[in-house]
Amino acid sequence: MAVSGVLRPGFVQLRVLDMEKALWHYQTIIGLKIVSTGDDGRVYLRAFDEFDRHSVVLRPSDSAGIDCTGFKCDGEAFLLGAEKALEQRGVKTEWVAAGEQPGMGTRLRVHMPTGHLLDFYADAELSEFAPMTRNPHVFREPPAGAGAIRFDHCLLYGTNVAGAFEILHDVFGFELSEHLEDPTGQPLAIFLTASNKAHDIAFVEHPEPGKFHHASFLVEDWAAIGHAADLMAVYDVPVDIGPTRHGITRGKTIYFWDPSGNRNEVFAGGYTFYPDQPKRSWEFEQAGPAVFYYEKKLNETFLPVVT
Amino acid sequence: MAVSGVLRPGFVQLRVLDMEKALWHYQTIIGLKIVSTGDDGRVYLRAFDEFDRHSVVLRPSDSAGIDCTGFKCDGEAFLLGAEKALEQRGVKTEWVAAGEQPGMGTRLRVHMPTGHLLDFYADAELSEFAPMTRNPHVFREPPAGAGAIRFDHCLLYGTNVAGAFEILHDVFGFELSEHLEDPTGQPLAIFLTASNKAHDIAFVEHPEPGKFHHASFLVEDWAAIGHAADLMAVYDVPVDIGPTRHGITRGKTIYFWDPSGNRNEVFAGGYTFYPDQPKRSWEFEQAGPAVFYYEKKLNETFLPVVT
Amino acid sequence: MAVSGVLRPGFVQLRVLDMEKALWHYQTIIGLKIVSTGDDGRVYLRAFDEFDRHSVVLRPSDSAGIDCTGFKCDGEAFLLGAEKALEQRGVKTEWVAAGEQPGMGTRLRVHMPTGHLLDFYADAELSEFAPMTRNPHVFREPPAGAGAIRFDHCLLYGTNVAGAFEILHDVFGFELSEHLEDPTGQPLAIFLTASNKAHDIAFVEHPEPGKFHHASFLVEDWAAIGHAADLMAVYDVPVDIGPTRHGITRGKTIYFWDPSGNRNEVFAGGYTFYPDQPKRSWEFEQAGPAVFYYEKKLNETFLPVVT
Amino acid sequence: MAVSGVLRPGFVQLRVLDMEKALWHYQTIIGLKIVSTGDDGRVYLRAFDEFDRHSVVLRPSDSAGIDCTGFKCDGEAFLLGAEKALEQRGVKTEWVAAGEQPGMGTRLRVHMPTGHLLDFYADAELSEFAPMTRNPHVFREPPAGAGAIRFDHCLLYGTNVAGAFEILHDVFGFELSEHLEDPTGQPLAIFLTASNKAHDIAFVEHPEPGKFHHASFLVEDWAAIGHAADLMAVYDVPVDIGPTRHGITRGKTIYFWDPSGNRNEVFAGGYTFYPDQPKRSWEFEQAGPAVFYYEKKLNETFLPVVT
Repeated sequence: MAVSGVLRPGFVQLRVLDMEKALWHYQTIIGLKIVSTGDDGRVYLRAFDEFDRHSVVLRPSDSAGIDCTGFKCDGEAFLLGAEKALEQRGVKTEWVAAGEQPGMGTRLRVHMPTGHLLDFYADAELSEFAPMTRNPHVFREPPAGAGAIRFDHCLLYGTNVAGAFEILHDVFGFELSEHLEDPTGQPLAIFLTASNKAHDIAFVEHPEPGKFHHASFLVEDWAAIGHAADLMAVYDVPVDIGPTRHGITRGKTIYFWDPSGNRNEVFAGGYTFYPDQPKRSWEFEQAGPAVFYYEKKLNETFLPVVT
Repeated sequence: MAVSGVLRPGFVQLRVLDMEKALWHYQTIIGLKIVSTGDDGRVYLRAFDEFDRHSVVLRPSDSAGIDCTGFKCDGEAFLLGAEKALEQRGVKTEWVAAGEQPGMGTRLRVHMPTGHLLDFYADAELSEFAPMTRNPHVFREPPAGAGAIRFDHCLLYGTNVAGAFEILHDVFGFELSEHLEDPTGQPLAIFLTASNKAHDIAFVEHPEPGKFHHASFLVEDWAAIGHAADLMAVYDVPVDIGPTRHGITRGKTIYFWDPSGNRNEVFAGGYTFYPDQPKRSWEFEQAGPAVFYYEKKLNETFLPVVT
Repeated sequence: MAVSGVLRPGFVQLRVLDMEKALWHYQTIIGLKIVSTGDDGRVYLRAFDEFDRHSVVLRPSDSAGIDCTGFKCDGEAFLLGAEKALEQRGVKTEWVAAGEQPGMGTRLRVHMPTGHLLDFYADAELSEFAPMTRNPHVFREPPAGAGAIRFDHCLLYGTNVAGAFEILHDVFGFELSEHLEDPTGQPLAIFLTASNKAHDIAFVEHPEPGKFHHASFLVEDWAAIGHAADLMAVYDVPVDIGPTRHGITRGKTIYFWDPSGNRNEVFAGGYTFYPDQPKRSWEFEQAGPAVFYYEKKLNETFLPVVT
Repeated sequence: MAVSGVLRPGFVQLRVLDMEKALWHYQTIIGLKIVSTGDDGRVYLRAFDEFDRHSVVLRPSDSAGIDCTGFKCDGEAFLLGAEKALEQRGVKTEWVAAGEQPGMGTRLRVHMPTGHLLDFYADAELSEFAPMTRNPHVFREPPAGAGAIRFDHCLLYGTNVAGAFEILHDVFGFELSEHLEDPTGQPLAIFLTASNKAHDIAFVEHPEPGKFHHASFLVEDWAAIGHAADLMAVYDVPVDIGPTRHGITRGKTIYFWDPSGNRNEVFAGGYTFYPDQPKRSWEFEQAGPAVFYYEKKLNETFLPVVT
């Protein structure tokens, strides 16, 4: 398959209220490693099994939430084509200069109708601690914390999810893998993929734009989910829900909060997506099992908590 | 991602010496279900999480081995383009008529230089027992046996692996995810993917053409591998090796034989492949851990056993 | 260790409202097998890894709840000594005739101050489907449903838990492995063991006598807990809580209900108890994590639901 | 159950050739922590879930192997009674002074006919890092390495296994849980327990006395066995066999060597032993699956490797 376009979620930039506590959390609980610290106070981290230089950027701020999330693409040409297509649609874009994040090339920043900033870029420096490739071991050293394999995706809340779908599908080639309908049968929550993963990004319709639900990290399996739950209990990390499973995507999951109130997820499993297969959908009355498959009902916090 | 081309391994057709024993094996051990039986004695089976009508075809014969394996593609146009490109390269092809396997469309059959037949097709009937898509449960009923999720890939032994690579890469868009070198540094074993999976097919260079190493089935995780090992012990299924892990692809695995001597694999895990990332390779001296990561050496049967 | 006394929880007799639904549940979800049906309508079942004839007795009734639970002991003499000791303490006992449950010897029935009937017996017929003992396989055939290994214990609610402790400790040699204090520091919930298991029976102080909280079945590990959760979701079994972990005993668990409203548990893990080690205890303020370690709070149903 | 007698395997003292390498191994691979170092160079370690001060003693030496292994008992009286009974049988004993290992009380040392020294003792200091007992967490900090829960047992090779059985059964109350027969039907390998564990010690008949097969450490489950296998591969720890399962005891296992050539085991699972149940046995022809259940044959190293 001559892949052309979006490869994968590449990074998320989150705002944190207390960097020291944040770094403890992302290292000890999630298992990331610090890559570097910028002059502006941003700290760059990565998971042990990622090739690119960093995947999580923490920015000191007095409000939590998401700044932007980015997708690694193959080919500068793809970005230029996307820019033109977005211009024709009247979608606001801008170019973020190479090096705005260390080691990252120019990013095409898209102002999504949901109120979020999505960045698309083709160049990222290879990490010096990237997975081995010559007679490679499964890891260089035992993963820490929950053993996050990679930053995997974001779930975002905002306005005009239908508009977000159009952009990501028509311009960037994302497919809808699964969705939850609102009471009128319109998409309330959509799960989009640019790969064989069950989702690479997801949106929930919400009256306020630009809200953040969670940033998710892949772990190995259900046993790793159990270990993560133990870690959170021992270290008193506030847990939203889990260990449980999502009906949508089938991911096994824990939702929990970082010390600033940004929701994180560790998850494992989920089906393999192929675009020729029938799409999965959930009627509104089944929103409970759609989101929390074992509990069969939403919890009070299945709403964004930070702006 | 505007996927264009090969989607996934879609089926494998194996020859079996004793259909009754074979059906016991593929149902009780691997966990497949019978879909239908053809007038020519071929039996069609599928795994519980597959959408297409069938994925395993067993053909009664007096010699074991592989007849062919097929790849589901998106678009008849892709097949026509491939046919032309192969013609230009002098690779023999032919069209297998729609319905030669029930529910399957026309297949472009490629005579590979390794001595194998690879089929590429764009149409396959949706299984009436396909995974649910409206308010879907994770399964319709508990998976049997080892809980095979899907037919995943084949490993084939044959001549001119380099030629096979050219065809699959240049014409069909497969990427080399990982390879093992021979003592001169040339590819001895190659692992190719048309997706984000670590491999969709693999070849090992061998003096005899058309040999079959194994057909592999995905299971959920390492716990499922353990359960499969118990099943094989209790039912006295001959095991080649495992539970162990491959260095190549990182898959956790058991190799075992069906009653006709066709090697099967159940495996779980493995990394997610992205074409922009550095490729993994193994030098010949590390063939042991490359293939059997825990044992660190090849076993006497890492050679095809059936023709 | 010359074991003398109580060996293990041997059976539980539960009342069910609809035998057909109950049998579906205990077979399909928990994985028990029917052993026999009595003239009085009682149905006897066992788990695949138990040696004794049966471990679960379902009695048709118009009210759910527990009739009695029994402990296998070694030696008739132990029972006679216990009878005498209980007489001296003024605890009401009686003998249940051999054969009252098929294959079971005489049972010393103790009327506990909590309002429950506990039976102690020394003889039980060996199951003809007992685990293999000559060149034994790990199972005779793959476990069904959640794969219950054995009936493991009951949790009972009732009056005068302190009185129950005295009888079980002083007369029957149970040890307190762990307990939860009430606000005054007195035992509110006690976990007792006659073995190296973290608990063989447990009691919670409650204003009403003779209440039933749950009957528990051991499964292999956290992966089995996950599989059980999937089964319950797919078959729409009402779940109380879980998958989660108990702080007390450390067991990984799901609480769920049978079709009559009897709470069941599947659990895995938990520490090994030794009587020389310091005992674990929880203050009342920590009742949440003591019971539900991940949620850190009790749920509304942590109370008996049937009488 | 009024426990009286042997509680559990309490420690093993092994000889190591290079203390620095040994400490790396027992910490990084097995996950033990150093407790203290003695003036004589012995280093004391413990697993994270053990209450007693230490469970592994490494003694610098120019030959590897086992010095002795000890069992924690309840009651000095039991030891005095055992001493007398052994004297009557003509078994050589001696008292090891309290404090010979720091924090340990007087040990009754038994010279076994197999050529091994077994110590029995009633007092051991509580570790200051023992598991929490007041509102206890499941661990104080995440377990390292393979996550060893405790030192679990030894397997010893030597002469006159029948004599060892008599002493341990008749004097110390061990039960035979399972055994492998020699070609004449006599016990060739015996597995003994003083608890509900499938084994607390095991012996294999061998022409040379005093040989050491392995010291075993419990880990949580099959997932932990997989993680241990990865660690051993990454850190190039020589592995004897595994991941696999034993037919005897059903334990899931890896055998591997410490840097001095002492064989270690990490294992999980195994049945719960009750003395009233039929005993398991294996005929000589089934020695393969008895020892290595998945491979179904012994390997060349199922013999002691150090003296």
